[in-house]
Amino acid sequence: MSLFLSVVPVKRAIEVAKSLATAPKTEYVPLTEAQERVLSGDIASDIDIPGFTRSVMDGYAVRAADTAGAGESAPAILALKGRVLMGNSADCAVQTGECAYVPTGGILPEGTDAVVMAENTEPFGDSILIKKPAADGENVIRYNEDFKKGEVVLEKGRRLSAQDLGVLAAVGCAEVPVTKQPRIGILSTGNELVPVTQVPATGQVRDVNSFVIAAFVRDHGCVPVSYGIVRDDREAFGAALATAARECDAILISGGSSKDDRDMTAVVIAGMGKVFVHGVAIAPGKPTVIGRVGTVPVIGLPGHPAATFVVLVAIVRHLLDGMTGNAAPDPVTLPATLAMNVPSTKGREDFLRVSLKDGIATPLFGKSGLLNTLANSDGVLRVPAESEGFEKGSRVEIIPW
Amino acid sequence: MSLFLSVVPVKRAIEVAKSLATAPKTEYVPLTEAQERVLSGDIASDIDIPGFTRSVMDGYAVRAADTAGAGESAPAILALKGRVLMGNSADCAVQTGECAYVPTGGILPEGTDAVVMAENTEPFGDSILIKKPAADGENVIRYNEDFKKGEVVLEKGRRLSAQDLGVLAAVGCAEVPVTKQPRIGILSTGNELVPVTQVPATGQVRDVNSFVIAAFVRDHGCVPVSYGIVRDDREAFGAALATAARECDAILISGGSSKDDRDMTAVVIAGMGKVFVHGVAIAPGKPTVIGRVGTVPVIGLPGHPAATFVVLVAIVRHLLDGMTGNAAPDPVTLPATLAMNVPSTKGREDFLRVSLKDGIATPLFGKSGLLNTLANSDGVLRVPAESEGFEKGSRVEIIPW
Repeated sequence: MSLFLSVVPVKRAIEVAKSLATAPKTEYVPLTEAQERVLSGDIASDIDIPGFTRSVMDGYAVRAADTAGAGESAPAILALKGRVLMGNSADCAVQTGECAYVPTGGILPEGTDAVVMAENTEPFGDSILIKKPAADGENVIRYNEDFKKGEVVLEKGRRLSAQDLGVLAAVGCAEVPVTKQPRIGILSTGNELVPVTQVPATGQVRDVNSFVIAAFVRDHGCVPVSYGIVRDDREAFGAALATAARECDAILISGGSSKDDRDMTAVVIAGMGKVFVHGVAIAPGKPTVIGRVGTVPVIGLPGHPAATFVVLVAIVRHLLDGMTGNAAPDPVTLPATLAMNVPSTKGREDFLRVSLKDGIATPLFGKSGLLNTLANSDGVLRVPAESEGFEKGSRVEIIPW
Repeated sequence: MSLFLSVVPVKRAIEVAKSLATAPKTEYVPLTEAQERVLSGDIASDIDIPGFTRSVMDGYAVRAADTAGAGESAPAILALKGRVLMGNSADCAVQTGECAYVPTGGILPEGTDAVVMAENTEPFGDSILIKKPAADGENVIRYNEDFKKGEVVLEKGRRLSAQDLGVLAAVGCAEVPVTKQPRIGILSTGNELVPVTQVPATGQVRDVNSFVIAAFVRDHGCVPVSYGIVRDDREAFGAALATAARECDAILISGGSSKDDRDMTAVVIAGMGKVFVHGVAIAPGKPTVIGRVGTVPVIGLPGHPAATFVVLVAIVRHLLDGMTGNAAPDPVTLPATLAMNVPSTKGREDFLRVSLKDGIATPLFGKSGLLNTLANSDGVLRVPAESEGFEKGSRVEIIPW
């Protein structure tokens, strides 16, 4: 039996990753803790907003028709009927030829339909001179113009921004139904790995990927659970994988970088569950493994940091979004002009790290083992499988990190 | 004495906000907690990375000169000297006419300078047929090519991304010097405000801004401290402000939206400290107040949610970045084509909410009191003070939310 399935297109790897995502569960969190969480259901407004027609200016509530033709030299003269206090109902109905003072946010008195800014008025005995005509609805927000009672204001699958929290506050959503944050187990394998606190001897390197993966997982609304460095030994690795599968909702393995180590990852996953993908037509990142242990999705990532990061951005993201229920479209890309030719092999998706300045994207042709080009790049240029590359001066889209 | 200073340009308001920022303090956090924190000092590498010349492929380490002219039909034949194991030093020196197997990440044996991928080789008795020439340095990362010992790898003022955590791990930075997160007090004033859990009566609205402000503060690396809704009453407001000034590093006040309330904010700040700005040439957001109580910067924000958000993005951000020591340049803007004419008044910076789709920016001419245009917009178009607006079809830059 060959575990080395044929290399699959990135598109297929994404489909498999998505299909393995387990359905998110719901929990309720206080509004103050809902930031960046994903809504697990539609949110409807419990009230009409605003619940009354209100002024957006300090000024005089009027009937717009009474101000027609008003100007500096020929002001309309309206009898001042009263003053609206903040938070209070207007106790005066306003008739033709009358007006009432209203503060910003104040309720428009019955009979009025517009507000003239205070700057365009002048007191005149018991009346007010109106020096500028108002259109019907000017400087007011009408009853339920913002949101209607029962209207869905935010949809299921939305990752909540600062502004969204404002909307939730307005519609009385003090306890927010969100998806539970999946726990993502992270294992690092490789006999060459040593912990950060240790000075590597010759032939050794510090474990870098588990920190990068954990941070990426957090950025995508999940909780990373680190299982540390696991020796390249089937028994030790199998035991760690079994523990992670019991305790987590998905598992990411930062693979040993040699072929033997990579094979071990696939063999052990296959022994405990199933391997669906072993090898993706992506550069860097070809030796990616996608499988499952029980119901727990497992992705084996390449050992090189830049390759790891590309696979996180191109493939793993879809698994995490599926598990958090994040329905956001693909991340915003930045248009740029390419500073040099980028050749590429047809049939393979290339992801080139680029620096981006003043709309010019400069590829950093660093090897995928280098950290400095990863940290100093602003994003990646994706060269689709069907493309043979881009010419200098092409307009391209950059996926920002 | 007039507290109503003349309206100042946005640029001046930003300068004042920056000048009030107190200097950040340093604390050390474990690497796993350093994500999104701001470095309080330069970080140098404690070692050469890599500490040895290593292979980025599974293959054969060779002297590149020995492979010159090699091809399918005329392979170079190199005697196999041995195999390098992961994490171990190569114990064989390789001479002219010899090669050694090396796994990805393995140390190059002495005497070799390149690696030929296994795919381009074939075993041949005790030798290896090399079917493709290798250039000097091909498929290897050289000793300290990534980072040199003592080299600054990340600079003070950098807000740490997932990739940056990888760099810190590589250079042995297990405890990271970061700036302390400033505590930002948030007060909401306005007699019309009721808590989220309450159904507003006519004339009342729920307190929306304090949630939006808290989330924005968190997004900018600070810790929000909510003081809830404070009545529009000088004594109560003064007492809350004094408490916040004792407990926090800066204070943001979501102002009552009427002129009387706004005046109260400025008057109370002036009574307890100093008001530097009262009125900014920005729309929406004109009634912004910038002052100080003791050494604590205080910014009074307009009451309308969209106006609040614009002032957070345009002005408050600079105060928060100053206090966290975030040296990041201005946020990335997205180029777009304008879908319609945008008139603007010279001398005032306008911030228009826009929706952005396929590179087309469509202004949402909603009133600043509306939440739905805030939550459904993708960012803002800034119309500079010296501009009279933009014509339909203009190329503009959008500041994404």
